[in-house]
Amino acid sequence: MKLLRYGEPGQERPGLLDAQGQLRDLSDRIEDVAGAMLSDVELTRLRAIDPESLPLVSGQPRLGPCVGQVGKFICIGLNYVDHCEETGQAVPEEPVVFMKATSAICGPNDGILTPRKSEKLDWEVELGVVIGREARYVSESEAESCIAGYCVVHDVSEREFQLERGGQWDKGKGCDTFGPLGPWLVTRDEIDNPLDLGIWLEVNAQRYQQSNTRNMVFSPHQLVAYLSQFMSLQPGDIISTGTPPGVGLGQTPPVYLKPGDQVWLGIDGLGEQRQTVLPPLE
Amino acid sequence: MKLLRYGEPGQERPGLLDAQGQLRDLSDRIEDVAGAMLSDVELTRLRAIDPESLPLVSGQPRLGPCVGQVGKFICIGLNYVDHCEETGQAVPEEPVVFMKATSAICGPNDGILTPRKSEKLDWEVELGVVIGREARYVSESEAESCIAGYCVVHDVSEREFQLERGGQWDKGKGCDTFGPLGPWLVTRDEIDNPLDLGIWLEVNAQRYQQSNTRNMVFSPHQLVAYLSQFMSLQPGDIISTGTPPGVGLGQTPPVYLKPGDQVWLGIDGLGEQRQTVLPPLE
Repeated sequence: MKLLRYGEPGQERPGLLDAQGQLRDLSDRIEDVAGAMLSDVELTRLRAIDPESLPLVSGQPRLGPCVGQVGKFICIGLNYVDHCEETGQAVPEEPVVFMKATSAICGPNDGILTPRKSEKLDWEVELGVVIGREARYVSESEAESCIAGYCVVHDVSEREFQLERGGQWDKGKGCDTFGPLGPWLVTRDEIDNPLDLGIWLEVNAQRYQQSNTRNMVFSPHQLVAYLSQFMSLQPGDIISTGTPPGVGLGQTPPVYLKPGDQVWLGIDGLGEQRQTVLPPLE
Repeated sequence: MKLLRYGEPGQERPGLLDAQGQLRDLSDRIEDVAGAMLSDVELTRLRAIDPESLPLVSGQPRLGPCVGQVGKFICIGLNYVDHCEETGQAVPEEPVVFMKATSAICGPNDGILTPRKSEKLDWEVELGVVIGREARYVSESEAESCIAGYCVVHDVSEREFQLERGGQWDKGKGCDTFGPLGPWLVTRDEIDNPLDLGIWLEVNAQRYQQSNTRNMVFSPHQLVAYLSQFMSLQPGDIISTGTPPGVGLGQTPPVYLKPGDQVWLGIDGLGEQRQTVLPPLE
């Protein structure tokens, strides 16, 4: 199933994408694509519904983030072998973990708001793991059952805020609109192998990132198991699993986003995002 | 006003502490001490209620975290002049910012669960700022109106997870039960000067931390203004403003918490927390 949320920000309704690529409304069946609705039991219940019996959504509504009420937005750094090679850094022995502010979450095609005083606005396409069941000290073999599904995440980053303003990375990772999620949450039964998905990103029609999730250092199952040793994971939490090579900071010379730029990114089977970079708020 | 939440975990009800120190139920007046209920308008409405008209709560219920549905739990590192002196580090030019997992939040007197494989469990008493109004690019003078009030935060930390496991600090800051909040949210009108509050912590009746918020490098107002340049702050977000000297890691030799230890901490006018350190989950 491809689950989604559509409508104006803060007022999104649940929906799904049918086999013909049409948007169907789920409001009468679930409250939201969020939290307890992401359990295997609930997803099985939804899967039993004939999509044709659901109302078609007319027009071209905005898509919201594909998961609502996200509790934690956990990110993994330096998790692609080819990215480590590119930067000349050793493959990490343990996952590098940081957090994005949940207030950064937005729809997959919403504009990316340039923060005031930003000069190093950068991109990172990533595979997102959506937690469906509470995970606490789980093993790798138990981890799969804790995953509701996968989605595209854009881990938008401001490199000066992240790396040159002292201390930890969070200042450059959590700005508003720095976390487009979606277009849809694809349930795990539809992804044969999360470690064999093409992943790519273009800016103004130039391809900067092109890799495959097989180049990941730590797999989604390993990451769920690892993180669950440090904190419990709840349904609706998102783990963004790191970006492949080709970010703006890695270019010679570095390339950064500016207002008007068009960003297009996607992952095989998980859909695509398109964003326009917006100027700072007045 | 001293607002609080009482009852079993996940089922807390709103309440307040009256002038006689008695617990009064607010369930008929507000849904929760959370989000939109923290605005000046709502707090003014609550203030107009005669506490004597509210039902007394009988018995000694558990206190929950004093704020519900926290969206962001933002922490500031190295924010006490005396702590900088103690550690021999320069006073930071800009606030050091990191995040705690919201799943770490618990009641002020709940047990601190030792994570599995933890050997360096440490304490940090901190002044918490509770956001009451959305803040986005606010000035220092505007910041006060964005603050609903203050509370005691215990920023429980695992130093090996934080500092020796690669990358950022988050692994050692977000474990379950690492974020006791409360006992109550004291609205800002009751705090004459948030920069003149005694702050202290004891372990097994030995005082390790003893300072005053006047030793802060960046004030609550400065922190709200600063953070709002990087991310919008929402009602119910918590900013924990850093710890004074005297943490376990700073002792010679270092002292860490072990199961059975009793921790007692508080801030003038904001109440006290008492925790027992528990062994790891089986």
